[in-house]
Amino acid sequence: MIDLYTAPTPNGHKASCTLEALGFEYNTHFVNITEGEQKKPAFLAINPNGRIPAIVDRDLGDFPIFESGAIMIHLAEKAGRLLPTDAKGRAMVMQWLMFQMGGVGPMMGQANVFFRYFPEKIPAAIDRYQNESRRLFEVLDKRLSESQWLADDYSIADIANWCWVRTHKWSGVSVDGLDHLGRWLNTMREQPGMQKGIEVPFSLDNLLEDKDAQKKFTDNANKLLQK
Amino acid sequence: MIDLYTAPTPNGHKASCTLEALGFEYNTHFVNITEGEQKKPAFLAINPNGRIPAIVDRDLGDFPIFESGAIMIHLAEKAGRLLPTDAKGRAMVMQWLMFQMGGVGPMMGQANVFFRYFPEKIPAAIDRYQNESRRLFEVLDKRLSESQWLADDYSIADIANWCWVRTHKWSGVSVDGLDHLGRWLNTMREQPGMQKGIEVPFSLDNLLEDKDAQKKFTDNANKLLQK
Repeated sequence: MIDLYTAPTPNGHKASCTLEALGFEYNTHFVNITEGEQKKPAFLAINPNGRIPAIVDRDLGDFPIFESGAIMIHLAEKAGRLLPTDAKGRAMVMQWLMFQMGGVGPMMGQANVFFRYFPEKIPAAIDRYQNESRRLFEVLDKRLSESQWLADDYSIADIANWCWVRTHKWSGVSVDGLDHLGRWLNTMREQPGMQKGIEVPFSLDNLLEDKDAQKKFTDNANKLLQK
Repeated sequence: MIDLYTAPTPNGHKASCTLEALGFEYNTHFVNITEGEQKKPAFLAINPNGRIPAIVDRDLGDFPIFESGAIMIHLAEKAGRLLPTDAKGRAMVMQWLMFQMGGVGPMMGQANVFFRYFPEKIPAAIDRYQNESRRLFEVLDKRLSESQWLADDYSIADIANWCWVRTHKWSGVSVDGLDHLGRWLNTMREQPGMQKGIEVPFSLDNLLEDKDAQKKFTDNANKLLQK
C-alpha cells in the first residue's frame, strides 16, 4: 500500500496518474497548499523541501519519497512497467522525463508565477517563460512527429510531460500549429488511469472557466509568494 | 568509449564529473554555446533540445543521450557505482537528484539570467530566484546536518547538487551560516575526479575575478537571450 500526499497540480498529477496507470492501491491525503499546509512540521517530516507530491511506501517499512520524478521512477520499478530495463530503453525514458523535470515543469511553472500570481505585471518575465515553454513544446512536437511516444514505448516520460503540457492554457502558452503534440495530447487523455489520475485529490480543470474560483486561487498563490 | 559534448557550465560539469568519478574513458567535444553552436544541425542531431551536455555512447551502437540527469543515471548504471540497486537506496538518490534537476538547477539558472544576463534589471525577479535558491540551500543544509551525504552513501545526487551549489557566488546567493553545506562543499571538492571534472572542457572559475572575461561572457549570454 502507498500513501500519497498531494494537491491538484501538474506535479501532484504526475504521481496520481502513475499510481493509476500502474494499478497500485493507494490512500490519498490532500495537502492544502493554498493554506501553506506543505510547510507545516507534519508534512516537512515526509518532504523537508515542503512541496507536494510525496509518498510513503508502506510495503517498504513506511519509507517516504519526495520529488515527483523520483516517485514515478520508484513506482515504475516497483511495478516493472512503463520504464524498460535495457540500457537504451531506460536512457530514452530518463532523458524525456528529465526534459520535463528540468525544462517543461520549471519553465511552465515560472510562466504561471509571472502570468498568474505575481503581484507586479512584468512583461519581460512573462514573455521569457511563455516563449521558453513554447520552444520546449516545439521540441516535443518534433519528437512526436517521429515517434508515437516520447521514448520508443509508452512510459512514465509521456505521463510526466502530459501532466504539464495539458495545462498550457493556464500558463498562457499556445499549442497552435503543433499537430503532433496535439495528436499525442488527445491520445494521452485516453490512456488507462489518466482521467482518474487528474481528478486526484479533486478536479481543478474548471479553474479556467470559473472566474470566482480563479480569483480566489490566484490571490492565495500571490499571498504565499509574499511569505 | 563515450563522446561528451559539453561547455563549462554546471550542467556540463555534472556529466564530466560523473565520467571522471566513474573512471570512464571519454572524448571531449567543446560546444561553443556563447556562439550558439548548440542550436546548429550537427548538435541538434544529438540533442533536439539544443542544450549541453549530451553524450554518445559508442559501446551502445553510437547511442545519443541528452539531459544531464539522464546521462548521470546511464553512466552510474553502466558502471554499477554511485547509484544503489536496492529500492530504498535508489529512491533516496533519485529524490535528491530530482531536487537538483527540478529545483536547485532551474532556480539558480534563473537567478543567473536575471542577476547576470538579462538586459533589464528587474529587482523583483532577481530577488525571487536568489531567495528561492537560498531556501533550497537551507533544505540541503538541514539534510547534511543529519547525514554525511545527500543519500545514505556518496552518489550521483551529491555530484549533481555540488556542480550547481559550488557556483553560488555567480548566482549572487550566500551560503553564510549553512555550516553543514559548507562542510559538504569542502568534502566534495576533494572527491576523486571532481577537480578534473570541473576543468572540462576548460576552467571558467576565474570568471568572478576577471572582469573583462566576465563582461564578454555576460554580453554574449545577453545577446543569446535576445534571439
